[in-house]
Amino acid sequence: MMNKKYNSVLIIGMGLIGSSIARAMYENQMATNVYGVDSSEKVIKKCEELNIVSKVETNIKKFNEQFDLIIICTPLSKYKDIFNDLNLYVSKTTFLTDVGSTKVSVIDDFKKSVKNENLKFLPAHPIAGIEKSGPEFGFSKLFQNRYCIVTPIDNDKEVFETLCVMWKELGMKIEIMDAEKHDKILAMTSHIPQLIAYSVVATATELETHLKDEVIKYSAAGFRDFTRLAGSDPIMWRDIYDKNKDAVIEMLGRFSEDLSSFQKAIRNNDLKYLENKFSSSKNIRKIIEDLGQAGHFDPTEKKN
Amino acid sequence: MMNKKYNSVLIIGMGLIGSSIARAMYENQMATNVYGVDSSEKVIKKCEELNIVSKVETNIKKFNEQFDLIIICTPLSKYKDIFNDLNLYVSKTTFLTDVGSTKVSVIDDFKKSVKNENLKFLPAHPIAGIEKSGPEFGFSKLFQNRYCIVTPIDNDKEVFETLCVMWKELGMKIEIMDAEKHDKILAMTSHIPQLIAYSVVATATELETHLKDEVIKYSAAGFRDFTRLAGSDPIMWRDIYDKNKDAVIEMLGRFSEDLSSFQKAIRNNDLKYLENKFSSSKNIRKIIEDLGQAGHFDPTEKKN
Repeated sequence: MMNKKYNSVLIIGMGLIGSSIARAMYENQMATNVYGVDSSEKVIKKCEELNIVSKVETNIKKFNEQFDLIIICTPLSKYKDIFNDLNLYVSKTTFLTDVGSTKVSVIDDFKKSVKNENLKFLPAHPIAGIEKSGPEFGFSKLFQNRYCIVTPIDNDKEVFETLCVMWKELGMKIEIMDAEKHDKILAMTSHIPQLIAYSVVATATELETHLKDEVIKYSAAGFRDFTRLAGSDPIMWRDIYDKNKDAVIEMLGRFSEDLSSFQKAIRNNDLKYLENKFSSSKNIRKIIEDLGQAGHFDPTEKKN
Repeated sequence: MMNKKYNSVLIIGMGLIGSSIARAMYENQMATNVYGVDSSEKVIKKCEELNIVSKVETNIKKFNEQFDLIIICTPLSKYKDIFNDLNLYVSKTTFLTDVGSTKVSVIDDFKKSVKNENLKFLPAHPIAGIEKSGPEFGFSKLFQNRYCIVTPIDNDKEVFETLCVMWKELGMKIEIMDAEKHDKILAMTSHIPQLIAYSVVATATELETHLKDEVIKYSAAGFRDFTRLAGSDPIMWRDIYDKNKDAVIEMLGRFSEDLSSFQKAIRNNDLKYLENKFSSSKNIRKIIEDLGQAGHFDPTEKKN
């Protein structure tokens, strides 16, 4: 399928991901005009300062036009209202996709709110991000060589192909998946690690003051990797645990069992058990590096 | 105190840390000759290939000379034998320091094995490292701007000052601490995060094959940060849990309580609790960044 240049694209939610999409769309000449919607005045000001989109408003109703493509990039708790708004607003054929970290809840919200057949929706989840939030941290190369999981809701080939081409143009590799399976895998690869990171940071925070200060000071020893994760957007994460509750609780149960086994091995001086388990983990790391999904950590500070 | 140029330095354990010290000592002209000891033939070969030290042997007994300074950089389980060897071998005043991740056990091993008054020991723990092991990954700048915690065993001012100057010359900031406190803080900043990382990776490894493959594939979502930690040396970590058992088990208990609170909040849809906790974590991250201890993560692959 040929690449398509959109006349007008609307991005709802101009945070890290939304602003990165806008940047990439202009850079790759994928759209003539990219517009933004964001409920935060601070975000709007930042977008205007940085000139990320042609125009940014607090609400879609403030635009006096229709769009060719709409991409939802807000926390999950806003989807229901957005779908209701779009259901009323959209009056011509409009491609619609999103970046939400859960897919079952998104599809459910869509089906309950949208009766408007002009909206051609392909739910998507680009697996890309950094621990910062806000449009000032976005960058056009964020999606390069990362996976985008799509979870189609019907058999509309045109919708599927058009939106897959769009994600590919942003630099992504497309994977098709069932929404339930997506939510389960992401619980393990993303939602559980994040919750554990929050939990480790919370434990450190509750230490007696004299210990806490030193934990922060000597964080370079491993703890800082957890704070890196814990630096991301609190509202986004709150919504994820709300929307993917069952899969998260199931995976948490499994994790707690494994952690108990380690604890028991330490208590019983079972060094052989520890060594074996640690060695297999090293192998998993190797596989991820070989797959080119490891990223690159530089222990020095960033030179800005 | 003036900087001192050593005539001959011996590094016992030529892995990531030992080889980085050797590199830095030559680069900063801190020593005329740096020698190495390592029990692994593979490591010895690598050191020779890369020309990291003047000579490297499997055992200190193969050297026919005395040293001005000895630095122990092996896993903790080897310390007892090394102290016994040094106790017999050393026949002139020799400064001695180490890089071990626990300090109570190291001091205990030293006191039990060493009666030789020529050995002038300052226990140390340079908080620096990457997730790789082996001399091929060492680099001279590893210690730059990182903390080195020293836990003196007596009031010998000359030993203390001489060895602090040495660590400073490697680029480090010195902190003096009581060994028990060191072990407790490191349990929280390093040993617990590492154990949790191992545990998350273990949970993923035990998933049904079809899920496991996809967890690895989509690891960029957060899981990969845990595998990064889990990529480090299994033996080194096995020994740490053996030697810092009590502090680790105490901190693990605290962590498990916090994780249970999160789990309960998710189960009960207590979104306010989650949001509050997540927001405080973001603040902790900010403090670490402001302290210049955050490092820098690049989501793209390393260009070699």
